Amino acid sequence: MKIQSVNLSNTNVILTAYLLDSSPEMPNIKQRPAVLVLPGGGYRACSDREAEPVAMAFLAEGYQVFILRYSLNQHAVFPRPLNDAEEALTLIRANSADWSIDPQKVAVCGFSAGGHLAAALGTMGSTRPNAMILGYPCILEEMSDIFPAPVPGVDQEVDELTPPAFLFHTFDDRRVPVQNSLAFADALNRKNIPFEMHIFPTGTHGLSLARPLTSSGLQSMVEPVVAQWFGLCTRWVSSVFGEFPSSIEPVLDEEVHEYSLDVKLGLLWNNEQCKKLILDAIPELGETPHPDAMGVPLRTILSYDGDLLTEEEQKQLNDGLKTISVI
Amino acid sequence: MKIQSVNLSNTNVILTAYLLDSSPEMPNIKQRPAVLVLPGGGYRACSDREAEPVAMAFLAEGYQVFILRYSLNQHAVFPRPLNDAEEALTLIRANSADWSIDPQKVAVCGFSAGGHLAAALGTMGSTRPNAMILGYPCILEEMSDIFPAPVPGVDQEVDELTPPAFLFHTFDDRRVPVQNSLAFADALNRKNIPFEMHIFPTGTHGLSLARPLTSSGLQSMVEPVVAQWFGLCTRWVSSVFGEFPSSIEPVLDEEVHEYSLDVKLGLLWNNEQCKKLILDAIPELGETPHPDAMGVPLRTILSYDGDLLTEEEQKQLNDGLKTISVI
Amino acid sequence: MKIQSVNLSNTNVILTAYLLDSSPEMPNIKQRPAVLVLPGGGYRACSDREAEPVAMAFLAEGYQVFILRYSLNQHAVFPRPLNDAEEALTLIRANSADWSIDPQKVAVCGFSAGGHLAAALGTMGSTRPNAMILGYPCILEEMSDIFPAPVPGVDQEVDELTPPAFLFHTFDDRRVPVQNSLAFADALNRKNIPFEMHIFPTGTHGLSLARPLTSSGLQSMVEPVVAQWFGLCTRWVSSVFGEFPSSIEPVLDEEVHEYSLDVKLGLLWNNEQCKKLILDAIPELGETPHPDAMGVPLRTILSYDGDLLTEEEQKQLNDGLKTISVI
Amino acid sequence: MKIQSVNLSNTNVILTAYLLDSSPEMPNIKQRPAVLVLPGGGYRACSDREAEPVAMAFLAEGYQVFILRYSLNQHAVFPRPLNDAEEALTLIRANSADWSIDPQKVAVCGFSAGGHLAAALGTMGSTRPNAMILGYPCILEEMSDIFPAPVPGVDQEVDELTPPAFLFHTFDDRRVPVQNSLAFADALNRKNIPFEMHIFPTGTHGLSLARPLTSSGLQSMVEPVVAQWFGLCTRWVSSVFGEFPSSIEPVLDEEVHEYSLDVKLGLLWNNEQCKKLILDAIPELGETPHPDAMGVPLRTILSYDGDLLTEEEQKQLNDGLKTISVI
Repeated sequence: MKIQSVNLSNTNVILTAYLLDSSPEMPNIKQRPAVLVLPGGGYRACSDREAEPVAMAFLAEGYQVFILRYSLNQHAVFPRPLNDAEEALTLIRANSADWSIDPQKVAVCGFSAGGHLAAALGTMGSTRPNAMILGYPCILEEMSDIFPAPVPGVDQEVDELTPPAFLFHTFDDRRVPVQNSLAFADALNRKNIPFEMHIFPTGTHGLSLARPLTSSGLQSMVEPVVAQWFGLCTRWVSSVFGEFPSSIEPVLDEEVHEYSLDVKLGLLWNNEQCKKLILDAIPELGETPHPDAMGVPLRTILSYDGDLLTEEEQKQLNDGLKTISVI
Repeated sequence: MKIQSVNLSNTNVILTAYLLDSSPEMPNIKQRPAVLVLPGGGYRACSDREAEPVAMAFLAEGYQVFILRYSLNQHAVFPRPLNDAEEALTLIRANSADWSIDPQKVAVCGFSAGGHLAAALGTMGSTRPNAMILGYPCILEEMSDIFPAPVPGVDQEVDELTPPAFLFHTFDDRRVPVQNSLAFADALNRKNIPFEMHIFPTGTHGLSLARPLTSSGLQSMVEPVVAQWFGLCTRWVSSVFGEFPSSIEPVLDEEVHEYSLDVKLGLLWNNEQCKKLILDAIPELGETPHPDAMGVPLRTILSYDGDLLTEEEQKQLNDGLKTISVI
Repeated sequence: MKIQSVNLSNTNVILTAYLLDSSPEMPNIKQRPAVLVLPGGGYRACSDREAEPVAMAFLAEGYQVFILRYSLNQHAVFPRPLNDAEEALTLIRANSADWSIDPQKVAVCGFSAGGHLAAALGTMGSTRPNAMILGYPCILEEMSDIFPAPVPGVDQEVDELTPPAFLFHTFDDRRVPVQNSLAFADALNRKNIPFEMHIFPTGTHGLSLARPLTSSGLQSMVEPVVAQWFGLCTRWVSSVFGEFPSSIEPVLDEEVHEYSLDVKLGLLWNNEQCKKLILDAIPELGETPHPDAMGVPLRTILSYDGDLLTEEEQKQLNDGLKTISVI
Repeated sequence: MKIQSVNLSNTNVILTAYLLDSSPEMPNIKQRPAVLVLPGGGYRACSDREAEPVAMAFLAEGYQVFILRYSLNQHAVFPRPLNDAEEALTLIRANSADWSIDPQKVAVCGFSAGGHLAAALGTMGSTRPNAMILGYPCILEEMSDIFPAPVPGVDQEVDELTPPAFLFHTFDDRRVPVQNSLAFADALNRKNIPFEMHIFPTGTHGLSLARPLTSSGLQSMVEPVVAQWFGLCTRWVSSVFGEFPSSIEPVLDEEVHEYSLDVKLGLLWNNEQCKKLILDAIPELGETPHPDAMGVPLRTILSYDGDLLTEEEQKQLNDGLKTISVI
């Protein structure tokens, strides 16, 4: 994994990228979905409780994750925070090839005021995310009262370009009333934008993952019932973006420039000379190897079964394969 | 998060540390459990499929994680790999203060040949981990046949110092027979070392997380039933190491050197002068603030509720508090 | 378990009771919560798919369950179905002692049109349930269009006496639009009635448990994501009604009329003569038996450990205890 | 549901059958798997805690369930209890047509001493179950010490006819040591009989479902970690026996004796006269109705959508269909 921090245009606005490694052993993961996390804090802070722990939870799903620390306090005059989010999203898509991201699978995930910003990006952004995850979001214009500067009511802004949404909220949230999520759901429904929403009866505002991990040590911040949101959410994300591929058909689409142990068995098998050379060296493979093996480089197969060839024999076979010309 | 790579004594042996950040917002997480991951690969490779994806899954639990790429192939002559693991464990404990780790909560987690090494560390190590997580581990001496060099049968080595263990295996693993885990469980039981063990009927060798994420694209590497192991495992780890604290009693044990907005409300409340100054500025707090608030720095409380004080008023209050002497 | 069918006042209206057994081995379960199930079917049928399988799922939680087949078709003229439900609820509470039910823990659970009836009972009933479970409920007055007779819009009827509610719905339900649940949630919120609500994005109308079991064999009726509703629901019910008690303190509140093996150990221990007689016969028990044992009849303890006393010795001890007078 | 009690040959041996209803709405559930529950109690009692609550849990999965109260105390001289179990199994299979059971999908589920009996039935029975579920089973011959009469060590009896098994146990069970399950797993493995096994570290003997429901009110009988066994078990059972069918292809295999509203739409569609008559009455259906609808009787479709035909029109259409002769 690599971690990169990028200063965006506005003062003190930082995008931190958590980028998982690619590996030849994981050929099914060339492009990953990405999640842009917007922590909450009333446009006065970006809570650490809604930043790294949330990022880690999405990384465990195999997604590339970004945390945006956006414009706050006197700088939080709309649309400045929205511009920060637009800039972050544009940067993620612009670098998607380098960062192994599918540019059409970028979700935004915001909490509280960060949920307002996420919903604003999804409804008003000059560029839009492909999915929105909104935790106890501020939605209504009247939430402006607790912010340093007025914000638009994003329930008023839902349009045909708004991406699908996942929302969760607690009924007894006294800081950001559940009416916020209900109003946004209603607005999505009117525009026929699909959504999943979970309203739990009990839990204070700002629960983040609702686990001891994000509790600041406070019992009131641990709600096992609400903590179910994250599992529900990842299931939703994979229904929207799809799972990482795992079909029995090995992926044999790349072009071969030179035969060697590092070429997938299925591609070597397509060449009769290669096949003969390999079978002479490793008769155990048999005429029709297991389909699973066809998508794996021969070297990997050998590494799993050390009895097949000695290192010296591997070297010989590799040299032999290299002499066979690719048509 | 920080990522650090450390070269250990032996050639090509690298320990990669994934270290989560501390935060004043998470005062209950000063020391974290740690997991030392040992990927499998027949002592001939360290599989990427059992490295970073597993590390991410444990990071999402809030643990510090380390991946050890230990001695392989001609270097895998015992006890050399064991020495690598001992060195890694020693290093982790030696740096536990810097790395926010509880040195008595370090688990080792190994798969296949890495499971052999993990079990060796737990039973034969000159220093021992506090818990062992063993995925389809090689245990029996006869597994030496598929390794580059002979290894001891670790079922023979279980002693009174062996830490508790979590094991999982599939019945129809043809590469590393289930007899390996059964024999180790039996040996643990004879020495009265507690363990949890899950044997699933179906699944090939080397499943890692058994999810599309770690499938290399092969259908045979996705087994939702087996994928339950990780949830079972984290539940076990937290029963062994305990959860992150989250009691309603705020933690008020630190020493105060200077009063300011950055001091926890409960500590400020213990000083009558501070209390008076604060109540004059923020009568909304009331004589007896909510217990949850007592363990939180006053500045954090103010950041959640921007209506309480303007930035200017915050500065004034902070200056006022600083003039009050700590007895 | 006993099954009883009761004909209610209106033609063809039948209440079927599924009543779990009490047992001296389960002294913590004297009164059970109850669930009154109202299957859906457009007030034209009561679907078997939303009847027995749902009843079984609640019985597995230890609840007494009732299925009401209410007035349909030409008989479904409001308030006749409501009267059926009121009569059923009254009957359940009137028989609560006989049927081992806590009369203050009776939930109603309805699906589709049955959800309309459940919500009507909760908002308009002359007697009210203690909780409502509403699956893809018809709520709005405009749903009258698909019913044999007009019904009131129950979102208009929420009042202060309305009990807490659990709702689930799918966004793309074309038969009963999600707007029904959203409107009811909004009405509950305005009256500050607590609720839990789950809206899933995908799934046809009438999913029942959304499992193969209730699928009628149709793939479209199996939705693993939606099937999560039942686990969420039972968790909600136990948060509303509480779990069955399981404290370490044995329940020792009953009055003893005669000492014998059938009296709880803790109550025998309170009498010095009994205690002495028992310790003479079974010294293994020790002066201070495990607290768990104190709430269990002595005969049960003996049944678990057949080595303690022969049957003949048990008889003797029993006879001896009976001679000791209860003060 | 029907409940039936049958007295078997031996004194006081009773088989109680819990038989779920069939329904034309659930045409995919004609034959159900069955579970024969054998409660524990040291061959001195059959614990209620391991009887009805367990039966309910399996009924919720859609299985037919039987509880056998087998020979106890002085009657528990082997092989008498085994004969009881054999007789029960034979009876279940003999009545499988009447009781809607697939005779090749009958599992036995026993706890403690009942687990011994279940394992004896699976390894020594003159007739065998199709799967074994063993909760903290007594396996070893040495367990005879706590029984009223000696029993065979069933680990010695595993043979090629032994069905697959699911086992769970706790490491710190002091009454029936975990060695019992380990020995049985080892014996199964030697004969290559597939099994799933879960050993949890913590929990007293006799946990049943390990939930408050089966706790007798004792805190020590509630172990959320161990309570996972039941979900793991039902997942295993459905992997062994298969799920209830739910393919998009409607089942159209039955013979039609007379056309009517009670015939499946797909079968009506196969007859051009029927199709024409229906389309004239209900043009909304269209030439090619949704595949899901093809397996459902036309009357059911009409019951879901009351706007299609009035009752009078339904009657007319039904009469019309009846006049069309089945070729």
